[in-house]
Amino acid sequence: MSQRVVVIGGDAAGMTVASALRRTLPQDHEVVVLERGSWTSYSACGIPYWISGEVGSPEALVARSVQAHLDNGIDVRMGAEATAIDPVARTVSIRDADDLAYDRLVIATGAEPVRPDLPGIDGSGIYGVQTLDDGQALIDGLAKRPDKVVVVGSGYVGLEIAEACVARGFDTTVVDRSPTPLSIIEPQLGEQVAAAMRKHGIRLLADTAVTGFGLDDDGHVGAVDTEDESIEADLVVLGLGVTARSTLAAAAGLPLGAKGGIVVDEHQRVTGFDDIWAAGDCVVTQDRLTGDLIHVPLGTHANKQGLVAADSILADVTGQQPRIDFPGVVRTAITKFCALEVSRTGLGARQARDAGFDPVTVSIETTNFAGYMPDPETMTVVMIADRSTRRLLGAQIVGGEDSALRIDVAATALAVGMSVDDIVMLDLAYAPPFSSVWSPIQVAARAAVKALG
Amino acid sequence: MSQRVVVIGGDAAGMTVASALRRTLPQDHEVVVLERGSWTSYSACGIPYWISGEVGSPEALVARSVQAHLDNGIDVRMGAEATAIDPVARTVSIRDADDLAYDRLVIATGAEPVRPDLPGIDGSGIYGVQTLDDGQALIDGLAKRPDKVVVVGSGYVGLEIAEACVARGFDTTVVDRSPTPLSIIEPQLGEQVAAAMRKHGIRLLADTAVTGFGLDDDGHVGAVDTEDESIEADLVVLGLGVTARSTLAAAAGLPLGAKGGIVVDEHQRVTGFDDIWAAGDCVVTQDRLTGDLIHVPLGTHANKQGLVAADSILADVTGQQPRIDFPGVVRTAITKFCALEVSRTGLGARQARDAGFDPVTVSIETTNFAGYMPDPETMTVVMIADRSTRRLLGAQIVGGEDSALRIDVAATALAVGMSVDDIVMLDLAYAPPFSSVWSPIQVAARAAVKALG
Repeated sequence: MSQRVVVIGGDAAGMTVASALRRTLPQDHEVVVLERGSWTSYSACGIPYWISGEVGSPEALVARSVQAHLDNGIDVRMGAEATAIDPVARTVSIRDADDLAYDRLVIATGAEPVRPDLPGIDGSGIYGVQTLDDGQALIDGLAKRPDKVVVVGSGYVGLEIAEACVARGFDTTVVDRSPTPLSIIEPQLGEQVAAAMRKHGIRLLADTAVTGFGLDDDGHVGAVDTEDESIEADLVVLGLGVTARSTLAAAAGLPLGAKGGIVVDEHQRVTGFDDIWAAGDCVVTQDRLTGDLIHVPLGTHANKQGLVAADSILADVTGQQPRIDFPGVVRTAITKFCALEVSRTGLGARQARDAGFDPVTVSIETTNFAGYMPDPETMTVVMIADRSTRRLLGAQIVGGEDSALRIDVAATALAVGMSVDDIVMLDLAYAPPFSSVWSPIQVAARAAVKALG
Repeated sequence: MSQRVVVIGGDAAGMTVASALRRTLPQDHEVVVLERGSWTSYSACGIPYWISGEVGSPEALVARSVQAHLDNGIDVRMGAEATAIDPVARTVSIRDADDLAYDRLVIATGAEPVRPDLPGIDGSGIYGVQTLDDGQALIDGLAKRPDKVVVVGSGYVGLEIAEACVARGFDTTVVDRSPTPLSIIEPQLGEQVAAAMRKHGIRLLADTAVTGFGLDDDGHVGAVDTEDESIEADLVVLGLGVTARSTLAAAAGLPLGAKGGIVVDEHQRVTGFDDIWAAGDCVVTQDRLTGDLIHVPLGTHANKQGLVAADSILADVTGQQPRIDFPGVVRTAITKFCALEVSRTGLGARQARDAGFDPVTVSIETTNFAGYMPDPETMTVVMIADRSTRRLLGAQIVGGEDSALRIDVAATALAVGMSVDDIVMLDLAYAPPFSSVWSPIQVAARAAVKALG
């Protein structure tokens, strides 16, 4: 019997589900995608590189166009904004269109930038950066050649945008309430990021809480107000992170967790709702180390969760067992910023303590390849291990070329609960152009072993 | 009671054992190292970069000098060549010196280049490259500006030396009996290496067995003879791999395995000999996938085995339990060659079949970072998985910048017997300057999952 899957949201998670289902479901099953914006399947992570000019056009960030999805037999409806979900009647309401009935629903509504409730926040010239439409708005704003750009927040998106603005010649200031930028890394590594910012001509106001925005008579931003001073600003970018875009889900009574993320099981099925799945930046997912449900909005998880949701829906349609599940995350993140590479995985020292571990933290300096080769660059690796079990809890890297991706060894080790002793004995790649005889992750693991005694 | 540990061999494994013991043993215990050559603790892997001129002097390749070891309280005896071991009397005979009694003995005699028994092999102008003294001899040979350099063998050392010779302006030919260079990687990847060689002006004679060496009246090499032709050659480098340097051990009745490697347990203790340990290029070690004892001469293993041997000896002295063991290897290797990065880990397709697995091999092309960023370089990943268990068996990478080190994820996964399905769900680092949203190893794992069905 022909059935209909409706997917709300046409970016990474939504289009992954739709594409996988279109490949596997019988052709008489409908796959409908409702996308309120102008684009499908795009890389939001690429927006800073579009702003900087390294990427020439928004089209370049689109992995697959609307037409390509249509040609694949997916009923993509652009500009279609879902306004309500009725889980009992199994219908979705759409602005300026008839309600659409579904047999199975996928919510992939993504995330939205945090916009704190501060005086002046709704002034013009204040931008979030989450969608390609947001990116276009920011580019249009920069085209007016503002004298002073202020980025509020020093998470990786904030920093990447700040670097892009400096690259384009704008006077750029980053304001953050934290004492060091990039609060996802330990403060001693954050200091290195702060030094790189200064070297690249980015002004950093750390330990500084924004209290509001000064607007001119036209309602355009003119200043960012902080506890200490008022900073001149013709254009403001909000880099304060995101929360799940889950208003629709909330209104329909779906369970929500941290930062408004929809609560799902390991098959991305919404807890308590047999006909509804959710995936991507709008859900919470399990931290593999702590078991906590956390909100980690990243394209890499959205793609995997999309595959898992599609597999579960196919199993539901065919009456078979699902073949895959989503095991959760270990909070891996990476960025390149002002000639520094930065990465992290697992828990930071404070997160580890908060989760009830007894963490031992070590920090080592090494080089990105054998020290006798020409021009080695330094890198710092911080490693956090649990005193009682000797398990790896987390690792972080800041360094020059060829440093940050080494975090993947730690991310893999975390997934299986490996001890720092076992990491020391891994058979990792070694040749002089790539590392010293001990890989940087192993140099850190040896330091952790020593610290654990 | 004061006791004496004697270590034969003063490079990576031997000096690691000696240094670790000197740190941990009571001061009245003697630690004596016998080194027949002129150097301690050097990086043999760095020799090609010394030949090419990227590294300025042999001293740069020495991690710790003789004097530094002496200052640390290690009784290093340079130019001291052990000529016999008596495991019953517990003595070592030394050329032109008195016998030396030991309580515990460590054999760290390293490896020696394979010199096949071919006509003319003992002519002058034919070099192996294993020790710094070998490297100096080769540099002296090149200083005579030979017209034609021929490298016999296309393993990674052979290729690195060939590249160094081309970089120094020599007409260089590589001869190998294999159809493609670097037989540790699958032939389809070897083709890429062959193409890179040609592009860099290295002549490659594949599928060509060397039958001997033509010598002039002074006994100097003038030609490399093959089945098909005689190749002009004023200087020949043997890159035919190495075997364990274990003549001493063999004469003392110690058990030997593949390529003459000494057989040891997981604490590097020689099987059947309670007072003798061995570590580094002179031992065989367990393949973690097959359980086979194999000979893998790499500094990275030598260092780890040195730590393990020292830990075991300390335990033996103190009567405590050893704290660490050497878990074996997964055959990880990496090199940079003619602007190509090459790496591999685990079993190749044929090795997997020979070991009784039912391997499925996939090959994927991807880029070293997001395809929309400027100038991405391509990379090829080959992945081999077991049909019945879906376990990863091996992976290989050939590509441009920032490609080969990604093999470490596969090496880590192999150590714990991870399935390709689990690899797909790993939380690996993603940002546009580092990869597409699926890490290259995961792109390959997805292809393997598809092939396994």
